[in-house]
Amino acid sequence: MKSSDYMTPVETPTANAGRQIPDTFDHQPNLLIEGNNALLLDSGVSIGPVTIAYQTYGNLNSDKSNAILVCHALTGDQYVAGIHPVTGRPGWWDNVVGPGLPLDTDHYFVLCANVLGGCMGSLGPPEINSQTGKPYALSFPVVTIADMVRAQALLLDHLDIEQLFCVIGGSMGGMQVLEWASRYPQRLFSAIPIAASARHTAQNIAFHEVGRQAIMSDPDWCGGDYLRQDKCPEQGLAVARMTAHITYLSDAAFHRKFGRMLQDDKEITYGFDAEFQVESYLRHQGSSFVDRFDANSYLYITRAMDYFDLAGEHNGALSQSFKNTPVRFCVIAFTSDWLFPVAESQAVVRALNANAANVSFCEIETDKGHDSFLLNEPGFFDVLNGFLRGAAKHRGLI
Amino acid sequence: MKSSDYMTPVETPTANAGRQIPDTFDHQPNLLIEGNNALLLDSGVSIGPVTIAYQTYGNLNSDKSNAILVCHALTGDQYVAGIHPVTGRPGWWDNVVGPGLPLDTDHYFVLCANVLGGCMGSLGPPEINSQTGKPYALSFPVVTIADMVRAQALLLDHLDIEQLFCVIGGSMGGMQVLEWASRYPQRLFSAIPIAASARHTAQNIAFHEVGRQAIMSDPDWCGGDYLRQDKCPEQGLAVARMTAHITYLSDAAFHRKFGRMLQDDKEITYGFDAEFQVESYLRHQGSSFVDRFDANSYLYITRAMDYFDLAGEHNGALSQSFKNTPVRFCVIAFTSDWLFPVAESQAVVRALNANAANVSFCEIETDKGHDSFLLNEPGFFDVLNGFLRGAAKHRGLI
Repeated sequence: MKSSDYMTPVETPTANAGRQIPDTFDHQPNLLIEGNNALLLDSGVSIGPVTIAYQTYGNLNSDKSNAILVCHALTGDQYVAGIHPVTGRPGWWDNVVGPGLPLDTDHYFVLCANVLGGCMGSLGPPEINSQTGKPYALSFPVVTIADMVRAQALLLDHLDIEQLFCVIGGSMGGMQVLEWASRYPQRLFSAIPIAASARHTAQNIAFHEVGRQAIMSDPDWCGGDYLRQDKCPEQGLAVARMTAHITYLSDAAFHRKFGRMLQDDKEITYGFDAEFQVESYLRHQGSSFVDRFDANSYLYITRAMDYFDLAGEHNGALSQSFKNTPVRFCVIAFTSDWLFPVAESQAVVRALNANAANVSFCEIETDKGHDSFLLNEPGFFDVLNGFLRGAAKHRGLI
Repeated sequence: MKSSDYMTPVETPTANAGRQIPDTFDHQPNLLIEGNNALLLDSGVSIGPVTIAYQTYGNLNSDKSNAILVCHALTGDQYVAGIHPVTGRPGWWDNVVGPGLPLDTDHYFVLCANVLGGCMGSLGPPEINSQTGKPYALSFPVVTIADMVRAQALLLDHLDIEQLFCVIGGSMGGMQVLEWASRYPQRLFSAIPIAASARHTAQNIAFHEVGRQAIMSDPDWCGGDYLRQDKCPEQGLAVARMTAHITYLSDAAFHRKFGRMLQDDKEITYGFDAEFQVESYLRHQGSSFVDRFDANSYLYITRAMDYFDLAGEHNGALSQSFKNTPVRFCVIAFTSDWLFPVAESQAVVRALNANAANVSFCEIETDKGHDSFLLNEPGFFDVLNGFLRGAAKHRGLI
């Protein structure tokens, strides 16, 4: 199946298979690269064949110059727009990708691949190891952000796309954008890292470690072997998700959303049930997450983020990561993001400036925290629209 | 035993019983109030007899005017100074309480009681319910910060101390200070709430809820009944502690302490062992905590903090909490404290100003986060020394 066939209603091989999706985008089945391709990972381990599950939106033009690669975050996936076939809810960037939206599918060919190590069809811990006939689980090699990007480059090779018009992503997606710009500058016309960082900080690692400990201390994790034992470390994964979710918001956002409001406006009950609305919200975040995410994937992807240190790959000099880069950058940060603070984006901008790179830096004033890149932030959309339109004109796309 | 007998070497009834403690303060056994006293709690439940375990340091003067009540934080206890009989490590405020220190035991009689609901000898979930002969566990009634303060007032009655020279505490200890000032203003000469807040915010509640979920989802929690089943939800309690510990530091403190340094300066191993120093540190924080803390107490005390909302007790008007207060206040906050941000202390100061109260507000510049009140912060000690000396002169103590 060609990647531009997405408008043909087809059955999806994942949950809710066969369901007609009443939305802008009828999802194609996951497109898969399968073959004898193997990847040499940062760890020194070689793995393959590498399956990559991805989705596309819009049409690739004749000279293949209008492709935008969206890189998803830790708990995201390739279902960027339209209705997600597993959750039945809108894709995570349904407000950004589509006709007339910032990533305008009337002009651009948008693609997004499930990351290596993920759990939505790409090669990852829950997938079957063809050599053993069993899920990889913890025998899956630890992967890095660079490995994820290498896998995406394989996908571009497969699609015969030499250069992306743009690579864009928030949070871990932004880490991939930076890695792309560092590793394959000639394959990018422009790059938009959002709410990202060129390294994972000690506090970031600490939060991830708590999440991993929550998962690994759940008896149903079974030393990682839960799939074969028909179990699921739901409680641990839910606690991990709850912890992480707090870090995605801001104190102000929590206050505005929930304050100290009691669930169902009841009286105080003096107990340990979900008494406050924020507790009920968090519990829901945790319990709904386990329906769509694999616990081992959570371990692997958080670990990949922990290892990310772009300067470290260049003897500590971040500016060396972008030496003489031809890429046009738009670096976006949100003022209330305390997980990936503005200062981390500023460090990236300084490194780019040291290379006299073409870089625009936008600090968006908002109190919504790290998750702002997923929300309807008019200032954010204005920046995306402006930068992409300018770049598209320069590239001759519009 | 009289409370001023603390200098007599005695055996302690807790762990390491009989060990000679080579420190400034040889701990007395926990002093206990026991009798037919009962407390009517905020929940409407009456509980008793109320046992209160406490420690004292320094000597009470003849007119009982030099007593300072220290209120401990969530995971603190009455062992403020000297060597802790359970952990064998210095008390949590060993740098603040002692001869020549800010809470100068050459001048003041310092006392600290384990909070109601705690696990270091005061009435709490791990204690035996005399009516059943079994640990209370989840049959213990939910308590509030006000209930903790009511129990402390019982202790003062027992010691025949009409008015405290000062009540002081950080974090949850500061909440108790504010509750004291609101509830018993005539029993205080001065009050020092540190790194505190007049309400628990939604984000605060969210972090506590994650900790509670981690504990309650540990199978060894046994629905709260682990003591009778000779088990301990160690993993869940450790995860709760790890999560909370991150909130006690700041991003900058984590960065300075650990950065991205690898454990033992080894090479990257690409695995899930404690690879980064920060992971090893957090794991230690978790595992050492379970040796000294009761999981159910953790549930109850976090819940008490969640319920704290001083303005809520006065129809939403915080200023009503301090109406015509005669108490001298010194409100202290730390710039990098994101758990109890400076703005929360400022709200308290505004409420006090609305009452034309005698209030000094000190914002201490530090990057060490919420835990700054436990650390050697010279500016913080200067403030304590200055305020206490001024108040002591005014009170005729020095």
